[in-house]
Amino acid sequence: MADKLAVGIDIGGTKIAAGVVDEDGHVLARLKRETPTTEPLEVIDAIASITEEFRREHHIRAIGVGAAGFVDATQSTVLFAPHLAWRHEPLRDSVARRTGLPVLVDNDANAAGWAEWRFGAAQNEADLVLITLGTGIGGAIVIDGQPYRGQFGIAGEFGHMQVVPNGNKCECGNHGCWEQYASGRVLTRRARAAATDGTEFGKQLLADAGGTVDRIEGHLVTAHAKAGHAEATEWIADVGDWLGVGIANLAAALDPGMFVIGGGVSDADRLLIDPARAAFSRTLTGRGYRAEARIVRAHLGPEAGLIGAADMARITARRRRPASPGARARVRAAARTGRSPKPRR
Amino acid sequence: MADKLAVGIDIGGTKIAAGVVDEDGHVLARLKRETPTTEPLEVIDAIASITEEFRREHHIRAIGVGAAGFVDATQSTVLFAPHLAWRHEPLRDSVARRTGLPVLVDNDANAAGWAEWRFGAAQNEADLVLITLGTGIGGAIVIDGQPYRGQFGIAGEFGHMQVVPNGNKCECGNHGCWEQYASGRVLTRRARAAATDGTEFGKQLLADAGGTVDRIEGHLVTAHAKAGHAEATEWIADVGDWLGVGIANLAAALDPGMFVIGGGVSDADRLLIDPARAAFSRTLTGRGYRAEARIVRAHLGPEAGLIGAADMARITARRRRPASPGARARVRAAARTGRSPKPRR
Repeated sequence: MADKLAVGIDIGGTKIAAGVVDEDGHVLARLKRETPTTEPLEVIDAIASITEEFRREHHIRAIGVGAAGFVDATQSTVLFAPHLAWRHEPLRDSVARRTGLPVLVDNDANAAGWAEWRFGAAQNEADLVLITLGTGIGGAIVIDGQPYRGQFGIAGEFGHMQVVPNGNKCECGNHGCWEQYASGRVLTRRARAAATDGTEFGKQLLADAGGTVDRIEGHLVTAHAKAGHAEATEWIADVGDWLGVGIANLAAALDPGMFVIGGGVSDADRLLIDPARAAFSRTLTGRGYRAEARIVRAHLGPEAGLIGAADMARITARRRRPASPGARARVRAAARTGRSPKPRR
Repeated sequence: MADKLAVGIDIGGTKIAAGVVDEDGHVLARLKRETPTTEPLEVIDAIASITEEFRREHHIRAIGVGAAGFVDATQSTVLFAPHLAWRHEPLRDSVARRTGLPVLVDNDANAAGWAEWRFGAAQNEADLVLITLGTGIGGAIVIDGQPYRGQFGIAGEFGHMQVVPNGNKCECGNHGCWEQYASGRVLTRRARAAATDGTEFGKQLLADAGGTVDRIEGHLVTAHAKAGHAEATEWIADVGDWLGVGIANLAAALDPGMFVIGGGVSDADRLLIDPARAAFSRTLTGRGYRAEARIVRAHLGPEAGLIGAADMARITARRRRPASPGARARVRAAARTGRSPKPRR
């Protein structure tokens, strides 16, 4: 048991969340640090000191790092992380050198998707599509029990699929991206506009945020909706509607058995999921002639990313030799059942 | 050699194309039949008689059938085929009973995608996304050397991803589907409208079609474009532009190394592909920080479907016992190298 622990690290724009994760996905110990700066060297320092602290109490086998950004297909380099201002940062090798442990780096949504497949909402599914609604939209695909990253490691960027030609300007440089219509950013934008316009609800939101428009965030809308506020509920439903339309698009392409909805906006629960399901059923192509995917809320909450990163690192550390296709299949089968892969004879 | 042949059958709305296909994807013999009616029984009769004819000269091991429609995940039943008016047609077992051979049924685009991966444009790729532009848009996904069909068998229906909210009405019942903007149907629609409006180009097209508006088809536009006609070239480029935008969406989700463009509209070749590439490079999210997928024309032409169906049937017939994960991996590796899978020790 003791040799089956891994550290999971989730690097966000403002904080680092870390945990010691066992082979059942349980978090045995936790640490949080403010991301002191986005300077890569200081983040690596923070990861090293967190790991050192965990190692006093636990026998750690590997480190998994989830980061909000494009990670290359070899799970070693962060190609592009807008919030961290990183470009081609060789995070895996830097952390491995500092800690002497095997390290794996992945996109934070990929890590969360893996966790939901292994320990959360999609434990008995062959495939899974995870959609995280935070400020933007993140995504992950698990196919046949394997995280699917695409040829270059950047699959699952669902938020930047165009849903409205010449639509709202997106931070990615394009127009009409899905995350401009179905994410926390939409709620924040509407809330700040209402505050600026001085509507009744806007005034409430402004008061919630201590009188500063720029401090109004989408989660305030969610809180009002959960307390029964009609306008807030309608805003969440609008996000849910766009969520369902986009899910129908993904179902046309990928036809998974289950969509799992995570991220902060999923706190709205049925206020979000029910309208999404309705829009999905209304717009799915071939409806009536096919089985429909289930749409469920994620189970693991904000720790999904660190749990998944740790688990992937733990599994990968076991098979450090170049694996044959047969060995890969056994690892896959083991990942599914939770048992160790048998050595080849 | 002689025991490695399979029959491939491509069932279209108006004709059945069939061939004897060897393990290298070569078509050794061909037959075409008008689809006498869309009555399933008569189609099965036609398949049986075609197979009988092939068997006089060749030792056939299996039959692969590609059909334009939703095929279930067990590759046995056509769930829904609008052009054939089939609903839940158990085609595999019916043909197997009549012929005494193992039979596999798949969506025609899935079959074509498999053929392009095995023998065509994507032979050295890990993954492939095929987009066929015919009257509508078909699609197929190959991941890690395996056709990816989704949980219910219906993955790859890219044509019905919504790209314009409240856009053009689609035959599927929705509005704004991608195939309403990037397919042969678009060319046909514009050509017929021009003929009805009596524009100069419309008059030419009407003459090409013998004076009957309803006989004007998209391929006439392609022919004019290839002959240098400016307006025809622009129409093809417009389709290419929408093709590129949709490919950027698929790249955001799937990030494959290669997109292969097939179907009748791909006859326009660079007149279609160049504008598609331009639109793709212009709209791909994260451009500049990532490798870009290649976009290439399919290699196998209209026989891709029957070649792929035959090849899948041949490979599947080899592994009729329920396969272990290890055996599946060996079949996969064998499919990639063209060698027979080794029996397990």
